[in-house]
Amino acid sequence: MKAIFNFASGPGVIPQAVLQQAQDEFRNWNGHGCSILEMPFTGNAFKEVMHRAKEQLRSLLAIPSHYHILFLHGGASAQFSLVPLNLLGCHTRADYIETGHWSARAILEGQRYCHVNVVASNRKDGFTRVPQQHEMQPDTKAAYCHYTSNETANGNQFHYLPNSGRVPLVVDMTSDFLTRPFDVASYGMIYASSQKNIGSAGFTVVIIREDLLDRASHITPQVFHYKAQSEAHSLLNTPVTFAVYLAEKIFRWIEAQGGLQIMERNAIARSHQLYRAIDESDGFYRCHVELSSRSLVNVCYTLQNNTLTPLFLQRAAERGLINLGGHSALGGIRASLYNAMPETGVMALTNFMKQFAEEHRCDV
Amino acid sequence: MKAIFNFASGPGVIPQAVLQQAQDEFRNWNGHGCSILEMPFTGNAFKEVMHRAKEQLRSLLAIPSHYHILFLHGGASAQFSLVPLNLLGCHTRADYIETGHWSARAILEGQRYCHVNVVASNRKDGFTRVPQQHEMQPDTKAAYCHYTSNETANGNQFHYLPNSGRVPLVVDMTSDFLTRPFDVASYGMIYASSQKNIGSAGFTVVIIREDLLDRASHITPQVFHYKAQSEAHSLLNTPVTFAVYLAEKIFRWIEAQGGLQIMERNAIARSHQLYRAIDESDGFYRCHVELSSRSLVNVCYTLQNNTLTPLFLQRAAERGLINLGGHSALGGIRASLYNAMPETGVMALTNFMKQFAEEHRCDV
Repeated sequence: MKAIFNFASGPGVIPQAVLQQAQDEFRNWNGHGCSILEMPFTGNAFKEVMHRAKEQLRSLLAIPSHYHILFLHGGASAQFSLVPLNLLGCHTRADYIETGHWSARAILEGQRYCHVNVVASNRKDGFTRVPQQHEMQPDTKAAYCHYTSNETANGNQFHYLPNSGRVPLVVDMTSDFLTRPFDVASYGMIYASSQKNIGSAGFTVVIIREDLLDRASHITPQVFHYKAQSEAHSLLNTPVTFAVYLAEKIFRWIEAQGGLQIMERNAIARSHQLYRAIDESDGFYRCHVELSSRSLVNVCYTLQNNTLTPLFLQRAAERGLINLGGHSALGGIRASLYNAMPETGVMALTNFMKQFAEEHRCDV
Repeated sequence: MKAIFNFASGPGVIPQAVLQQAQDEFRNWNGHGCSILEMPFTGNAFKEVMHRAKEQLRSLLAIPSHYHILFLHGGASAQFSLVPLNLLGCHTRADYIETGHWSARAILEGQRYCHVNVVASNRKDGFTRVPQQHEMQPDTKAAYCHYTSNETANGNQFHYLPNSGRVPLVVDMTSDFLTRPFDVASYGMIYASSQKNIGSAGFTVVIIREDLLDRASHITPQVFHYKAQSEAHSLLNTPVTFAVYLAEKIFRWIEAQGGLQIMERNAIARSHQLYRAIDESDGFYRCHVELSSRSLVNVCYTLQNNTLTPLFLQRAAERGLINLGGHSALGGIRASLYNAMPETGVMALTNFMKQFAEEHRCDV
């Protein structure tokens, strides 16, 4: 079988070692004589997996003890509603930074529940950069300030920590979670769904500061009520057991690679190699995101001659470079470089890009 | 490896043939060179799986065309909130039938959103039978009438269709979904989470009559908004792709076995064999559920001498008969006999029960 490199934005590439182990034990997990898929979530065997996953995550991120870890259903998009439902408390306003497709969806959802103050937006620039601190106009009466650390569809990323003053900072970290170390204590709450760097689609990690657990509205569904799920150790209803099981293996894989410092070093190496290939193509490929805001995980670019895009995607797929299409709303090319993408994958992509550019330069 | 029979109430037993196929193609699905876990949910390959799963479900249940099929996040417990959020419309009241642990939880959640009228309850009888039609006092102003067709923890099951008049009937069918044919058109809405007879934990099937899609409250989270998800073909956000993939295989497995008539015949044969062993044990084992309400899928019973229960569970597990403990709130024994439980599993259990009773009859 030829090598396949999967650049999907999510669900996306999973470490081969993790997949191999999951396949080997798929029908007889830990000598139980049945699959992890068939194990009751209330049994000690699964509870131990859940507990280990949380403890390993706590260790990887050095999560302080007054932060609770929840594994919830619904994906990050559900959090667009669940954040206001759980965190507004007696407030009627919340701050949002708009940087692209996903933060815009969070804003639309937030508006169902409160007055949304858009602290800053670069919509007029086509989301080609994230706002700088001095551009933001925070509201001191806001319940929280929400932002998206990495815009998967637009290819921009915050490379600094926004300062929201005394207002708790809430971040959707879905696409760059576990790609670099960060200080959990700078946030009121962090959330990320699992289908990027935590394995398969199925659950959402919520890391929340203890004092924010008491703000939920009475109409918050019980299984999405942060405090209720915290008290029930995220076992108030059946979790997506297989996704949690896989996540536990991935947390251990990250640790075995050397932890988040190594993930960050690899993310920088991979993305710089690809951006270099784009920038040195004499305009054949173009990345519209400003240098200071370029994402290390989702590299979005276009071909100068956009009519060549379908051919580019087809030729790439023939080489085993798959799922390189941009977000459906934006088009172009997107290479997602999650933790499990080996450097050889980026090398194969840049080699292909050079060859394709040489062959089609006169078509521009 | 000795034979293992898994009587877990959910996640529970999955057909061996399905697990074998999923294991074989785990790292190279359909020649794509990567795992189904790594495939983007927006790609045609996964969309085709989702589409086939819905079409096969429609075929198995002969679902009329004016009923929509949704695959949602959150498990059945999330529906306890999402049903009132989506279905109350301009109503302020809803009817609920209380028959045990799960319908009671649905009532508690329903009370957050509306006035709940408990049409009938057999709480005073310890939920040992479901109410009969003449005991029900429906409210003609109710938005819907909710009931639980099979109480997984209490071991009772409706063997008739409650008549709610013109009020749409909404059923939580999580634990007996696909164990027998039923007339979809008798219901306003049917829901079931996937970890019983649809494979692994991860999604919830909602089958809903078209005219009920227009009732959602404006505070319903977008990803749980029935109409929005129906219009987006359940792809408004990343589905739990692996659970959907597995479900599609299970629907095909049911069809290959001969469909829902055969599932029902098997459910009757399995459960009757076990109830017979209980009833013919001279009181060593006791099922407290009345004959007419006994569940064909979750057989709940106790030992006359309850102090023997831990030993019973231990000896059973040594024989490969695992996960037989009752619900944590109720104790005792519970044998869940989902579609994938072979008749040999029930035979092994009843043989063990006879032997255990003979050895311990004098301990009673």
